[in-house]
Amino acid sequence: MDEFMQLAIDEAKKGRSEGGIPIGSVLVKDGKVVATGHNKRVQENNPILHGEMDCLNNAGRIGSYRNTVIYSTLMPCYMCAGTIVQFKIPKVIVGESKTFSGAREFMESHGVEVVDLNLPECIEMMEDFIKEKPELWNEDIMELE
Amino acid sequence: MDEFMQLAIDEAKKGRSEGGIPIGSVLVKDGKVVATGHNKRVQENNPILHGEMDCLNNAGRIGSYRNTVIYSTLMPCYMCAGTIVQFKIPKVIVGESKTFSGAREFMESHGVEVVDLNLPECIEMMEDFIKEKPELWNEDIMELE
Repeated sequence: MDEFMQLAIDEAKKGRSEGGIPIGSVLVKDGKVVATGHNKRVQENNPILHGEMDCLNNAGRIGSYRNTVIYSTLMPCYMCAGTIVQFKIPKVIVGESKTFSGAREFMESHGVEVVDLNLPECIEMMEDFIKEKPELWNEDIMELE
Repeated sequence: MDEFMQLAIDEAKKGRSEGGIPIGSVLVKDGKVVATGHNKRVQENNPILHGEMDCLNNAGRIGSYRNTVIYSTLMPCYMCAGTIVQFKIPKVIVGESKTFSGAREFMESHGVEVVDLNLPECIEMMEDFIKEKPELWNEDIMELE
């Protein structure tokens, strides 16, 4: 297992243990961890704090993202993908995209390299969560009436 | 002047008076103000709190965005545009797009209605700011080396 993806999975598990949505993220710059984060919709009553956004929030103002890679346990949605494009983060490594296909093509069309590790551990974590709390998951991806 | 755009301009001015970037936003649901916000990159050392994101953050978890309109004094960037698409906000009303062209086509390609009021007051506010603090503006739109 990639050590940075393992950190992202640890963040996702932390989120789950807090009663939240199990998605974690890690920002790496020049080969070193800058920040970690996880989805905090439930914990902070905040719809914009997806895992990737919380991670970028925690990183603060770091200047250029040219030499960064962002890890996420799940394929980014349009909010997070738009942020990756706007911040010019060149590479995204995700745990899986089976439970949520996200905005891969949009990122790739803007020159972002996207690597999908398709990890059984990440798929199982999301499948268990979605089965247990379908309403919360639908709210997080805005699949609402 | 549209009363909601006036509120967004007031938010932008508040941000400027705090030493921040003068971009304000208002979320309206069923014709009523749900939340206001402004860019807080400087104030909270936070790269994800553009005006629109701060506004959605302040609104909290409101369920469906189907009957909402988001106002911004400036055309949304890819982060904010991606969020608008993900949250399924159907309509965006902006003060101007002369100083920053943003991601209008991306939003429209996803069915979002975009109205550009092209207001001299908003253009002047951004032109003055960009002239005074070009490095800060370049950081906010990630035009960095």
